[in-house]
Amino acid sequence: MAGNKGVVYQGPGRVEVSDIAYPDFVLRDGPGVNPANVGRQLPHAAILKVVATNICGSDQHMVRGRTTAPQGLVLGHEITGEVVETGPGVEYVKVGDLVSVPFNISCGRCVNCKARRTEICLNVNPDRPGSAYGYVDMGGWVGGQAQYALVPYADWNLLRFPDRDQAMAKILDLTMLSDIFPTGYHGCVSAGVGVGSSVYVAGAGPVGLAAAASALLLGAAVVIVGDLNEERLAQARGFGCETINVAEGDLGDQIDQILGAPVVDCAVDAVGFEAHGTGADSGREAPASVLNTAMEVTKAGGSIGIPGLYVTGDPGASDEAAKVGSLSIRFGLGWSRSHAFFTGQCPVMKYHRELMAAILNDRVHIADAVNAVAIPLDNAPEGYRSFDKGAASKYVLDPNGYLGSLAV
Amino acid sequence: MAGNKGVVYQGPGRVEVSDIAYPDFVLRDGPGVNPANVGRQLPHAAILKVVATNICGSDQHMVRGRTTAPQGLVLGHEITGEVVETGPGVEYVKVGDLVSVPFNISCGRCVNCKARRTEICLNVNPDRPGSAYGYVDMGGWVGGQAQYALVPYADWNLLRFPDRDQAMAKILDLTMLSDIFPTGYHGCVSAGVGVGSSVYVAGAGPVGLAAAASALLLGAAVVIVGDLNEERLAQARGFGCETINVAEGDLGDQIDQILGAPVVDCAVDAVGFEAHGTGADSGREAPASVLNTAMEVTKAGGSIGIPGLYVTGDPGASDEAAKVGSLSIRFGLGWSRSHAFFTGQCPVMKYHRELMAAILNDRVHIADAVNAVAIPLDNAPEGYRSFDKGAASKYVLDPNGYLGSLAV
Amino acid sequence: MAGNKGVVYQGPGRVEVSDIAYPDFVLRDGPGVNPANVGRQLPHAAILKVVATNICGSDQHMVRGRTTAPQGLVLGHEITGEVVETGPGVEYVKVGDLVSVPFNISCGRCVNCKARRTEICLNVNPDRPGSAYGYVDMGGWVGGQAQYALVPYADWNLLRFPDRDQAMAKILDLTMLSDIFPTGYHGCVSAGVGVGSSVYVAGAGPVGLAAAASALLLGAAVVIVGDLNEERLAQARGFGCETINVAEGDLGDQIDQILGAPVVDCAVDAVGFEAHGTGADSGREAPASVLNTAMEVTKAGGSIGIPGLYVTGDPGASDEAAKVGSLSIRFGLGWSRSHAFFTGQCPVMKYHRELMAAILNDRVHIADAVNAVAIPLDNAPEGYRSFDKGAASKYVLDPNGYLGSLAV
Amino acid sequence: MAGNKGVVYQGPGRVEVSDIAYPDFVLRDGPGVNPANVGRQLPHAAILKVVATNICGSDQHMVRGRTTAPQGLVLGHEITGEVVETGPGVEYVKVGDLVSVPFNISCGRCVNCKARRTEICLNVNPDRPGSAYGYVDMGGWVGGQAQYALVPYADWNLLRFPDRDQAMAKILDLTMLSDIFPTGYHGCVSAGVGVGSSVYVAGAGPVGLAAAASALLLGAAVVIVGDLNEERLAQARGFGCETINVAEGDLGDQIDQILGAPVVDCAVDAVGFEAHGTGADSGREAPASVLNTAMEVTKAGGSIGIPGLYVTGDPGASDEAAKVGSLSIRFGLGWSRSHAFFTGQCPVMKYHRELMAAILNDRVHIADAVNAVAIPLDNAPEGYRSFDKGAASKYVLDPNGYLGSLAV
Repeated sequence: MAGNKGVVYQGPGRVEVSDIAYPDFVLRDGPGVNPANVGRQLPHAAILKVVATNICGSDQHMVRGRTTAPQGLVLGHEITGEVVETGPGVEYVKVGDLVSVPFNISCGRCVNCKARRTEICLNVNPDRPGSAYGYVDMGGWVGGQAQYALVPYADWNLLRFPDRDQAMAKILDLTMLSDIFPTGYHGCVSAGVGVGSSVYVAGAGPVGLAAAASALLLGAAVVIVGDLNEERLAQARGFGCETINVAEGDLGDQIDQILGAPVVDCAVDAVGFEAHGTGADSGREAPASVLNTAMEVTKAGGSIGIPGLYVTGDPGASDEAAKVGSLSIRFGLGWSRSHAFFTGQCPVMKYHRELMAAILNDRVHIADAVNAVAIPLDNAPEGYRSFDKGAASKYVLDPNGYLGSLAV
Repeated sequence: MAGNKGVVYQGPGRVEVSDIAYPDFVLRDGPGVNPANVGRQLPHAAILKVVATNICGSDQHMVRGRTTAPQGLVLGHEITGEVVETGPGVEYVKVGDLVSVPFNISCGRCVNCKARRTEICLNVNPDRPGSAYGYVDMGGWVGGQAQYALVPYADWNLLRFPDRDQAMAKILDLTMLSDIFPTGYHGCVSAGVGVGSSVYVAGAGPVGLAAAASALLLGAAVVIVGDLNEERLAQARGFGCETINVAEGDLGDQIDQILGAPVVDCAVDAVGFEAHGTGADSGREAPASVLNTAMEVTKAGGSIGIPGLYVTGDPGASDEAAKVGSLSIRFGLGWSRSHAFFTGQCPVMKYHRELMAAILNDRVHIADAVNAVAIPLDNAPEGYRSFDKGAASKYVLDPNGYLGSLAV
Repeated sequence: MAGNKGVVYQGPGRVEVSDIAYPDFVLRDGPGVNPANVGRQLPHAAILKVVATNICGSDQHMVRGRTTAPQGLVLGHEITGEVVETGPGVEYVKVGDLVSVPFNISCGRCVNCKARRTEICLNVNPDRPGSAYGYVDMGGWVGGQAQYALVPYADWNLLRFPDRDQAMAKILDLTMLSDIFPTGYHGCVSAGVGVGSSVYVAGAGPVGLAAAASALLLGAAVVIVGDLNEERLAQARGFGCETINVAEGDLGDQIDQILGAPVVDCAVDAVGFEAHGTGADSGREAPASVLNTAMEVTKAGGSIGIPGLYVTGDPGASDEAAKVGSLSIRFGLGWSRSHAFFTGQCPVMKYHRELMAAILNDRVHIADAVNAVAIPLDNAPEGYRSFDKGAASKYVLDPNGYLGSLAV
Repeated sequence: MAGNKGVVYQGPGRVEVSDIAYPDFVLRDGPGVNPANVGRQLPHAAILKVVATNICGSDQHMVRGRTTAPQGLVLGHEITGEVVETGPGVEYVKVGDLVSVPFNISCGRCVNCKARRTEICLNVNPDRPGSAYGYVDMGGWVGGQAQYALVPYADWNLLRFPDRDQAMAKILDLTMLSDIFPTGYHGCVSAGVGVGSSVYVAGAGPVGLAAAASALLLGAAVVIVGDLNEERLAQARGFGCETINVAEGDLGDQIDQILGAPVVDCAVDAVGFEAHGTGADSGREAPASVLNTAMEVTKAGGSIGIPGLYVTGDPGASDEAAKVGSLSIRFGLGWSRSHAFFTGQCPVMKYHRELMAAILNDRVHIADAVNAVAIPLDNAPEGYRSFDKGAASKYVLDPNGYLGSLAV
């Protein structure tokens, strides 16, 4: 058995790369493991040697100390790897397969999985529907920012790349299949983006850029990305998007200058509850501001896809209502426009196969779109810091040297 | 030319039946008519002798003085009638046709009408997408609680009943096609109600009861209606619904007692912004309370249909945020459950034909479900008062004696 | 270990109830077992004590000798049972659970299962996508017209009834969930049946009657069932359908007499390739006749759901083209009407849960609709014969006395 | 009033450019005009000065003498023009608007139009649902391969280009909006083409090429076009398609060489009933051959979009069955694979606006894809001949010199 090393949360603002246990086919107790999950037998699991594992914006929520994540939690839910061992209940996945892991853990047996709603699987998290690797309140599944990681229900969860060499040639694209590419795409699909659409994407972080790239892949006519971060906006312009610095005036006015009308067909909120205000609220958190401006700039009859995270409680929020997850939303505005709103985690499995085909056939270059940068596992702390400061990059950790990454 | 008489808003709490102008094929100035609509030529219109025209809960918003509706506004947007005259541009509608009028006025020429989104027609209301008869801020189309009413774009808007005698035999059912039956049905369809669903309908007013009847028609397994009004809840039980008095304890607990689980598959908000609080908020308006409890009792992955009206501004609201249409919504709760939310007016034309077929073939008895009561036009003021007090009835005005109604 | 007894195909026109092997967790060689499936390990399987198992029209295709089914094949793919043993890989299904088995065997791991297309599972039949118990060319899974039966991938395939007593009280309804109720329902759903639809169902056998009951459950306004068998047509009238004896004149004319128009909104072909001709073709097989008349009587823009079986080859066909599965179809007629055609097995899992809810909440009485009749296992031969003669009954075998059935 | 000149069918193999009547607001008698349409008043119509009008493959069916088209019929249903006059019932279309005309004539008042099924409008063709300009058995609306053309129900039918200069710069692209671009796109949409799909398009004529371009616009991963015409296949390769010469071996084998599997996800039949056989049937018409091979190469669960025309009768067919529109179809093969089949004319209005947006924002270059070639109106006969011989071009007639076309 090999050793193992992973990225461990050590308290607000601190992550370290430490020795961690090598996976085996049982879920053992540890930081954040739900007691009801301790000792769970996993004959259906596979162990992966990790090829690529990305730092995600939602990891930052924990690392910033905005959650109750326990010290010692191994982080990471964006995992691509090579199968090195399979449990006795695994039938189709084979050692040597190169695979993508959906960040949502799901069982493939419950009513929601059967309905393609893997983001709300009923059997993997004792607390509530839905789970993820290395995440607070998600049942205690060990994170994958590590050399080795375990994936339960491997025959169900894993997406096999059809050809190893072809896959390794596009591995920085394929690693986005575990989360942000499907997540951005789901935001677009639920917002009704299609051929000829005009789309506003709020947020030019990796999910926003992935949504923008997805909108183009879906045939959108005009994709407008809004953010406060000029470097990230430049990244969006690099693959054909229009951009708006939301600090530079009214959003509708800026859209009007681009489209000749102050509204778009579809909007995607790729920011979530940590939104920052503009204008009078500049510099402060304004958790409903993206939602409210999305309604302002979405045409009557339009839909709003909301992959950006909103939480049921936020101890670090700036006001009492937000601490319990209540936001002041201009709901009447949306109602008067017959808006529809789609929330929640992306069910990755619903989309990852078609997006893989698009990558492998050169229909999309998602690694370029999000500016993927591979770095060694040991540089994860620097990656977290740099990303938190707003770097226009998506950091891909290289725990086993598959990527030939250099220090950040 | 005949005379005409209609129900006129005279200020908060007051409606009167007065002489009004007989319709002609031009939209003339009057209370609430948008200047841009004054003088509009209507060769495409038909004039109806009204057979039935119902008092609607949304009329009450105006009559209670919660809007800027001007004195002198002729009310009424639920109209069923007999065609007595057609403009020169009318080709298919014929004098003598018995027809239902969708409450949404639409042109049949704009991009939204072409996409079946008649509730947000772009050509009938100079202020914003969407319109209705006899309603504040809707362009100034004259209301139909009258003896005669004009319907623009008659070939597009009108639904002809195939047989006059058959129709008159079910006229109290068919009169619900102009608004509340499609509206309740739309709430169910957008909430994803289907065969085998469990459904929670918030509100046992006419729209809520219509939603409940719609859910059963769509094959729902269990329909639970919640309200504070016992008389209306009894009405719901009368056609096979389970009911909950929301004042009598936690909603989830009460649902659990019915279903063996504290959540339903689908929820319909048939109340809107004039919701009343329960528990600590008892007796006060709590405009977000129905939405927030709907999220609490809807399963992960469920959808919430929201035909209940939410407004962009409410001068009479109890707090400053609500006055500008901002509600304190537990959005994180919905997000954690992957809820989808569908708002806006029902596009009546999308549904009225199939619902007519269901009525004419005895698949649904909507008049019984909502307890339709026909009253003379002159009794409209009593009808408004009684309905405002919470009568478990849907009042149908009988301006021309077709219904043989008796005084209320 | 108990003994086992099952219904065995003995050649054209002959079935017998014989001793057969008690299931175990490996697929052993036997009549019709695909060599590639021999020895397949089934740790994911459950063994059921069969509560009810129905004779299906598609079994008749084999028994009539119209297929290459081998002598010795254990028949039966409509299975409801009690779990008596589970393999080591089973995690959620428990001994004592009362369950329905979809007739399509599926793995819950392949791309089609993940997309809810369990009728074309890629992992259970070495010959081609899709499989079923006790059926020729389906991989060799042992049939379930027996005392005990094995279900692979039990956590995926089985639908658990929530309450045993409640289930046993409606067991003759619930036994229809394994095949014909979802199959008829799928025909309707794919034909676009909804609230207010007029529907033509070709065929008043059990699938046709199930389709008719499904149409009503879906809110159809008028359901018209056509057949040559008056007893079966009477059965359809018994639950609210209109009926047509297709031998008594032109189908469109007969529909016109019912609807006032010679076309319906939606059509369901519940007959398939063994259709009999009418008029000049009376008494002969006319394998395309149902399809062709369905096009004649379906309105422009309508869809045709085709759960009735069509085969790739039919050695017993009356003409050379039909022997290789080619039918003379008036395709231009369908094209001129913009028809859509939906073929194939029903993916039972997509529907069985919602239909179970409809049954358990008394929204449908499917056992009455199809005239379910329980008979002892030993009477299976009589059941086959009677059904083949056109009895207006659906025979439910009672291999373990749960149903208290009497001899037929 | 100006004079008018148009392309007139003069009998099998012959078209001429002749003087024809200038349109007015009544449908007058003439070759092919249905008696019930003679004298129809058209106050809702607009008269266009034609900017571009294309020769279509379906015109060729008439010109080849395969239909009952009467001598004297003015041809042409692909029309783009400038509004020069509007009837008194026209409210939104304005003189000077540059517009695209859907080839399907529709009323915007009937139940099918309201449901976006403009291809089967009930009010424009006395014979049956659906109509088109300049086409046999379509009610007698005058064709648009002319200098001036009349469009009824102009407010409903016309799509206005938002900016004249921008439109004229892309006019050879925009002229494809009247028929073949939406038609090819509809084939793809109904076949389920989406992001990541592999698609087989049968036929590399203009509709096939438009389908291929549409598939790419919809995000397809691999698009394979099959034909016998090498020049047209080269055209397909020119914008990123794979191609197959269907005469050069088994289609599945050739697909296997491209994809590594002998099946695609989706298929589009852009050929129709005038298909030519291959192999043993080489050189002969084989009207079902495209459909049958499409089933062979479409995966289980796939759909087949069929924009290619199939007719209810074909006097020139090579066998008796085909003369009455009956084709020998391997329906059992499709059934065994759960195929779905979508037929009929494209409802252009459902798609033309989104495709216009894609053109105007440079997301697709449809004129290049189909090799649009503008020629003077007077060269129409040469255009018909060249196209009939298999030129890999789409001929665009330039009746008023807007396009600056040169002789072919």
